Amino acid sequence: MHALVRRTHEERVLRVLREHGALSRGQIARAVGLSRTTLSEITGSLLQRGAIVVVDTDAAKREGSGRPAERLALDPASGQFMGVDFGHRRVQVAVADAAHEIVVSGSDRYDDAPWPIRLEQAFQLIDRLSVESGVHYGALQGVGIGVPGPYSTAPGVLIPAADEAAAPGQPEVSAQAAFARRFGAPVIVDNNTRLAALAETVFGNSSVQDLLYLRISDGVGGGLVVGGRLVTGSTGLAGELGHITVDPNGRACRCGKQGCVETLASVPAILKSCRDQGLAVEHLDDLAAAVERSHPTADQVLRSAGSAIGRVLGTASLILNPKEIVIGGEIIRVAPAVFQQAIATIAFEHFPGAAKPLVRRAELSDDDGALGALAALFHSSPLLAAYPETPDATTAPIECARRKTNRGVAYGRAH
Amino acid sequence: MHALVRRTHEERVLRVLREHGALSRGQIARAVGLSRTTLSEITGSLLQRGAIVVVDTDAAKREGSGRPAERLALDPASGQFMGVDFGHRRVQVAVADAAHEIVVSGSDRYDDAPWPIRLEQAFQLIDRLSVESGVHYGALQGVGIGVPGPYSTAPGVLIPAADEAAAPGQPEVSAQAAFARRFGAPVIVDNNTRLAALAETVFGNSSVQDLLYLRISDGVGGGLVVGGRLVTGSTGLAGELGHITVDPNGRACRCGKQGCVETLASVPAILKSCRDQGLAVEHLDDLAAAVERSHPTADQVLRSAGSAIGRVLGTASLILNPKEIVIGGEIIRVAPAVFQQAIATIAFEHFPGAAKPLVRRAELSDDDGALGALAALFHSSPLLAAYPETPDATTAPIECARRKTNRGVAYGRAH
Repeated sequence: MHALVRRTHEERVLRVLREHGALSRGQIARAVGLSRTTLSEITGSLLQRGAIVVVDTDAAKREGSGRPAERLALDPASGQFMGVDFGHRRVQVAVADAAHEIVVSGSDRYDDAPWPIRLEQAFQLIDRLSVESGVHYGALQGVGIGVPGPYSTAPGVLIPAADEAAAPGQPEVSAQAAFARRFGAPVIVDNNTRLAALAETVFGNSSVQDLLYLRISDGVGGGLVVGGRLVTGSTGLAGELGHITVDPNGRACRCGKQGCVETLASVPAILKSCRDQGLAVEHLDDLAAAVERSHPTADQVLRSAGSAIGRVLGTASLILNPKEIVIGGEIIRVAPAVFQQAIATIAFEHFPGAAKPLVRRAELSDDDGALGALAALFHSSPLLAAYPETPDATTAPIECARRKTNRGVAYGRAH
Repeated sequence: MHALVRRTHEERVLRVLREHGALSRGQIARAVGLSRTTLSEITGSLLQRGAIVVVDTDAAKREGSGRPAERLALDPASGQFMGVDFGHRRVQVAVADAAHEIVVSGSDRYDDAPWPIRLEQAFQLIDRLSVESGVHYGALQGVGIGVPGPYSTAPGVLIPAADEAAAPGQPEVSAQAAFARRFGAPVIVDNNTRLAALAETVFGNSSVQDLLYLRISDGVGGGLVVGGRLVTGSTGLAGELGHITVDPNGRACRCGKQGCVETLASVPAILKSCRDQGLAVEHLDDLAAAVERSHPTADQVLRSAGSAIGRVLGTASLILNPKEIVIGGEIIRVAPAVFQQAIATIAFEHFPGAAKPLVRRAELSDDDGALGALAALFHSSPLLAAYPETPDATTAPIECARRKTNRGVAYGRAH
């Protein structure tokens, strides 16, 4: 084989393993479009040089006829990836090795602190985790950062981070620049709801190329994945599902409009609707208790919220024709009526005979932001910038699942 | 330069010229990511071998300081592309050379004939055009076919054409297979509204990567372009804007739902609303006459239709954050109130301070379907299937405009 051709093939195999974690030879062959014979030559050489290793886990036994398929992965020591999720009240960090196993994770609270303090706390947390675990970050290949609020990013382009909390007169602080300086690695930043949407594409029976994600929390946010890629939109605002009007005469919304779905279906809006109808609920726990004893007011408010969510998702589904619709947020777990009503309304919004998307609950919880950032990192193209003359290959759909390992939660192979 | 590297560079230069028509050296260098020096070596060799030629038009004078930039294009004789648009009542054909100049075009009526007859008429038309013009199709590189109705296609994958008009019991007839057999060239097929959406991305001051398209005709249809690519959705139904509910208690729709935007804003729906209010209008011409004398009933019905369109597009815009929204259909020209009201409603659906998309009328008319199919062909990846180991390069945004040439309408360079 010609040396340049061999090197190109090797790079593609390494890239697929970087993106997907451990894979069987058959999965690699399909993903890179090489024959088994050619692939065997390439993987043999990579194994010999220690760039990749053979791994075998319980999950592998599920493949095919039951005979465990040997799976290959990047040498775990050959790289590390860091996921960081900045929430309004806490930062979370998770570090995975090149085989996608989580080797370090932790979080710290900061309660709405300004941005420079959030950054400083994040770095302290990262240092403390290193001391506690003995893991150093010498092989860091990239950092994925989730931030609250709209964030514009174009594939393959590194841009400054949002400076939402930089005080007037203070020097602007870019999370992206700060992490890039600290670790000397490429950094991608995006809205954390969008990263969660991307992370949800790797769950279930197959990796989903077209997915619509909505999360109910203090607000209502969303994210779109089309053709396997996050949609950012022309100014970084794609997926603003929360501000779609569902009741033109409804409550005033913080965005300046009236009757946005957020005014009916965010957690604070649901609690307020309950209180307006005489049901004393201050927190989600109170609502959970009311649901527990089947309080009709709670049920009616929750169904109304679910219907509003369903109208927005049904409309978005007619526009985008996704394979899956995923609804996230703790309230989905606490109050099943929201989810049930949303499913019914989504179905009603589709015309009879139209193929309807699968509607499911989110796999990642609100506390899994760092895992979402890691998943996005594994799937992002900026890290491939080292190969500018060989553009991102279209990889074949590969089936993935989250699995528990002895070292925590990892993104791995279901079969 | 290594021979394999040189060949890869040459292929990328040819591909960019195939996709965009004539370009200056600077535009080519940006699009393929090569230095001017390397590019100069590549283009010199291609020019010497006659694979590309130097072209210079008025449009080139607009580039930079006013000094005309020499532009390069594929040798016009080196390839031909055919666009075919099957409507419900007529077929249109346009053939362009490798430099994107239209060399042959024509159309023929068939008035709702079954699919095999439509195909036969298309082939007869194509043969007749060849005889009349003296143009043969020996250099045909690809055929783009637009069909009415939903159509599923995945990028890079050739799939059988929709057989919507094949009578029960009759053998299925695939337009794609028939054209592929006839011309021995790759064939892409998609819904013609979606092709029109893609074609609209090349108009204006810059090629638009994110565009939302809606067309008002016998029904209401749509198409989405995200990141420069057509969105098909998981089952080929993306862009079904016509069946979004705007009035839950509205008229019954042919889809089985009630109050879809199509029941308020399609041309037949608008005419019916006028008649229901005592204004005798049978055809679009009657409506045009009523608009001409500022009939208040016509104005009110048209504003109501525009408002329904605007609600759907405003919602879709919050979801997708497109750079441009394009509204097409003859009624937009005949009845400006629809367009004006749609713009106002779209603006109202965006929250204050949000970046709003540019809303404009379609450049291609309903009769330009074959040009839409050609534009889609120039931008489609299936034709690149000859280079499976070198996936589709991300080309830099390049500014395009439609221009008139001595041989008709061509997709060319604004500067």
